[in-house]
Amino acid sequence: MDLGIGGRSAVLMASSRGLGRACAESLAREGVHLVINGRTRADVERTCDELHRTFGVTTTPIVGDATTARVHDELLAACPEPDIVLLNGEGPPPSAFSDIDADMWADTLQRTMVSPLLFVQRVIDGMQQRRFGRIIAVSSAMVKSPNPLMSMSHGPRLGLTGVLKGLSKSAVAHNVTINTLLPERFDTGRQQQMAELVMRHRGITYDEARAEQVASIKAGRLGRPEEFGDTFAFVCSAQAGYMSGQSIQLDGGSYDGVF
Amino acid sequence: MDLGIGGRSAVLMASSRGLGRACAESLAREGVHLVINGRTRADVERTCDELHRTFGVTTTPIVGDATTARVHDELLAACPEPDIVLLNGEGPPPSAFSDIDADMWADTLQRTMVSPLLFVQRVIDGMQQRRFGRIIAVSSAMVKSPNPLMSMSHGPRLGLTGVLKGLSKSAVAHNVTINTLLPERFDTGRQQQMAELVMRHRGITYDEARAEQVASIKAGRLGRPEEFGDTFAFVCSAQAGYMSGQSIQLDGGSYDGVF
Amino acid sequence: MDLGIGGRSAVLMASSRGLGRACAESLAREGVHLVINGRTRADVERTCDELHRTFGVTTTPIVGDATTARVHDELLAACPEPDIVLLNGEGPPPSAFSDIDADMWADTLQRTMVSPLLFVQRVIDGMQQRRFGRIIAVSSAMVKSPNPLMSMSHGPRLGLTGVLKGLSKSAVAHNVTINTLLPERFDTGRQQQMAELVMRHRGITYDEARAEQVASIKAGRLGRPEEFGDTFAFVCSAQAGYMSGQSIQLDGGSYDGVF
Amino acid sequence: MDLGIGGRSAVLMASSRGLGRACAESLAREGVHLVINGRTRADVERTCDELHRTFGVTTTPIVGDATTARVHDELLAACPEPDIVLLNGEGPPPSAFSDIDADMWADTLQRTMVSPLLFVQRVIDGMQQRRFGRIIAVSSAMVKSPNPLMSMSHGPRLGLTGVLKGLSKSAVAHNVTINTLLPERFDTGRQQQMAELVMRHRGITYDEARAEQVASIKAGRLGRPEEFGDTFAFVCSAQAGYMSGQSIQLDGGSYDGVF
Repeated sequence: MDLGIGGRSAVLMASSRGLGRACAESLAREGVHLVINGRTRADVERTCDELHRTFGVTTTPIVGDATTARVHDELLAACPEPDIVLLNGEGPPPSAFSDIDADMWADTLQRTMVSPLLFVQRVIDGMQQRRFGRIIAVSSAMVKSPNPLMSMSHGPRLGLTGVLKGLSKSAVAHNVTINTLLPERFDTGRQQQMAELVMRHRGITYDEARAEQVASIKAGRLGRPEEFGDTFAFVCSAQAGYMSGQSIQLDGGSYDGVF
Repeated sequence: MDLGIGGRSAVLMASSRGLGRACAESLAREGVHLVINGRTRADVERTCDELHRTFGVTTTPIVGDATTARVHDELLAACPEPDIVLLNGEGPPPSAFSDIDADMWADTLQRTMVSPLLFVQRVIDGMQQRRFGRIIAVSSAMVKSPNPLMSMSHGPRLGLTGVLKGLSKSAVAHNVTINTLLPERFDTGRQQQMAELVMRHRGITYDEARAEQVASIKAGRLGRPEEFGDTFAFVCSAQAGYMSGQSIQLDGGSYDGVF
Repeated sequence: MDLGIGGRSAVLMASSRGLGRACAESLAREGVHLVINGRTRADVERTCDELHRTFGVTTTPIVGDATTARVHDELLAACPEPDIVLLNGEGPPPSAFSDIDADMWADTLQRTMVSPLLFVQRVIDGMQQRRFGRIIAVSSAMVKSPNPLMSMSHGPRLGLTGVLKGLSKSAVAHNVTINTLLPERFDTGRQQQMAELVMRHRGITYDEARAEQVASIKAGRLGRPEEFGDTFAFVCSAQAGYMSGQSIQLDGGSYDGVF
Repeated sequence: MDLGIGGRSAVLMASSRGLGRACAESLAREGVHLVINGRTRADVERTCDELHRTFGVTTTPIVGDATTARVHDELLAACPEPDIVLLNGEGPPPSAFSDIDADMWADTLQRTMVSPLLFVQRVIDGMQQRRFGRIIAVSSAMVKSPNPLMSMSHGPRLGLTGVLKGLSKSAVAHNVTINTLLPERFDTGRQQQMAELVMRHRGITYDEARAEQVASIKAGRLGRPEEFGDTFAFVCSAQAGYMSGQSIQLDGGSYDGVF
């Protein structure tokens, strides 16, 4: 299937590893020029090299925390008129609700909700004028099924989803779509860390912790990053211009609700 | 119907006027002792006087902005063990998305989402230990149907709804319920202000602006504050202990979606 | 709280036992005249006697299966202009999807979806003309969280919910509200039967089967029928006229989804 | 993007024209062998010829109404082990609720809900054993935003969505996904008929009727069938195996609700 986006350009936050990297790879394969971002220089540069060598697209490395205005500036300096934007970042750690103080709330809200919105502000008008835009946020399946231990994750992310949904209503008339992907338990470093956390806290083996992760997914397996990347690429495609304001769950069919 | 809450105590944020005042009145009628709050001393004191005289319940005035730690302290000093908490406050004004800067986001998030959560933190454990609690947030119908001009309202409110939903899952085992009410266009000062805003911006008459408000509601009329107050009182009732984590729309049947 | 419906009349399908009986009792207490229905004459007459003696309201017994046109005729002969209608009936038994043939589908759809809609057809215009109506369907929490063993239950019920939601959009302008209640695991004969079924199928004791029911509910207990009845009564109230098209879960806070 | 389904086989109901035909074309391009169905022999045969000539895949014509057991038999005789199934069919005409009698309900439920489910019954076990299956229903955006004039459409379709969601929970463990696509106003013969209906009923011109259709879509245009077909093809892909139980709206961003 030709996605109709060869030669377009994308700014991909947190794309040097994990799901973000999978998104980058799926776009590179379609001939999209990429700005790759991550906090570890070696990861960012390796991703840029590999994708450039394999797919021949331009890859520009921007090292740093994509929740800061400085990195926003650099991303847009590298690509002033992006056609595609991936809003992505590391999720906060689990916390009991009683432990979350005002500063922790302010910090997680700034990083997870406000910062992506400030970036959207800087690109959406241009996308509308150029009559092409694909803005996609990586969120979490938990925004639809909140877990009391993950308030700092699903709270800000749900707020972000709501604001993006509102914006999607006016943007779609200009062929700018805004959608959210809701992953659950993909086989990335994040799930390995989670398994190690559980292993230490509960005194079980790593294999037992992994087996519990698998058991929590109705598909009976973790997701593969390339499944996520290709879904992302499809949502970025030219032919996905009639689909906007959607929250698509990539969770091995695990969500309980009918909608 | 006997709601089974006579003699219980409630802390009601922003309850001297409008929907909050209607909630206070419905609880006072059921014999609940009240802490009344608002930013205008005269309003708070008048509400306290009227409800005390009419219904014989204790009414304690706390004047000030209920999004501040100081007022939280005073509310809890006046009622250290509330059975019922109303999370309520003034919504932010409409704003074009492009006009919302980082400080405005931080401010609206602190007021509309973080501040209520910090208050919940201070009361939820006690409610669980005493095995009775009713926490109810007044939100907005827009959290389910986001409007691009009201990002500062539905964004934080949706985040709040998500965190409260997560908390409700563990609290309900202790007979502490957490629910959200989603009003749209009740006949309070807020809608009068909105009509005046529209009147000035678009050069139409006040009556025309009001007629547009009515036309936007499928019921063909604005809601009456006492309808809101009585729904609130029912959700506070002893017999509502099996209903939690719900978002109930009070919108004249206007919401388009099946769920 | 005065529900403002004293002297009104209600037709209550399947109201001689269980949740339907609880609905009848809550309305009788508010002074509503009742048509009581059930398939067992003794149950229907006992309910009529008890509610009449206790609350002084008129109670008219209609014995028979409320999914038939004959019983619809009798219900409306007994009460030609009902203000309140309860759509209720026994749910189908669990079935593996592979066992459901065309006749079983046709039968469950007729009983659970079509029959209530045909009854609504006969009352809704009159309600609109008289400018008061409260139509409430008892459905199941499963309509929002479908279970593969209960296709014959949630399929037709979800269809019913959708049609009622559509109708609610035009009816609310005439002060006719249409809402759905979604119960899960109330302490009625139905749950006792379910426990006995599980007991026999899995070779566990009745107490073990009941403990599993309780464990499936986040509230840590089954619902009490009177909690259901009073929620129903509130939704029937005069002051609930601004709330329509809602699906309210009464499930001990068990539903996983944010909306 | 390689969808990884070359050489697989698909049974596509109602695929000789409109959205179904677009689905067929997108799969043919990926090298999927097709059973094409429709009620008009000339349409079915033309589609078979064109897709076979253009893409070189096998195309088998089955002429007849795909809501009948006879056509189900023929579809499965032509392709006893389908990897992909498209559940599709003509929607019912608009009807005032008061005009829908028991026979009309029984008929629309049989055609729109029961018949597809009976077909799913015949293929799902085999798909699970072969560890690949993609079942996709074409529904309507109205299942999430019911319209009082379309009860016969969204009622059965919502019932279907619910049963399929339940089934998806157990099927996904065997790499069988079940998803629903919710189109609104694609530029097919259906919308032309609708425009003609409106033209005659309201005495406006065809162009005015079309302009109203466009105005009802936030994207400011109708959808293109190939946008629908390619989304269908992506959901059928090998890499979409971690996405199941989803209802994806293809509506030009028009749906009002956040989820």
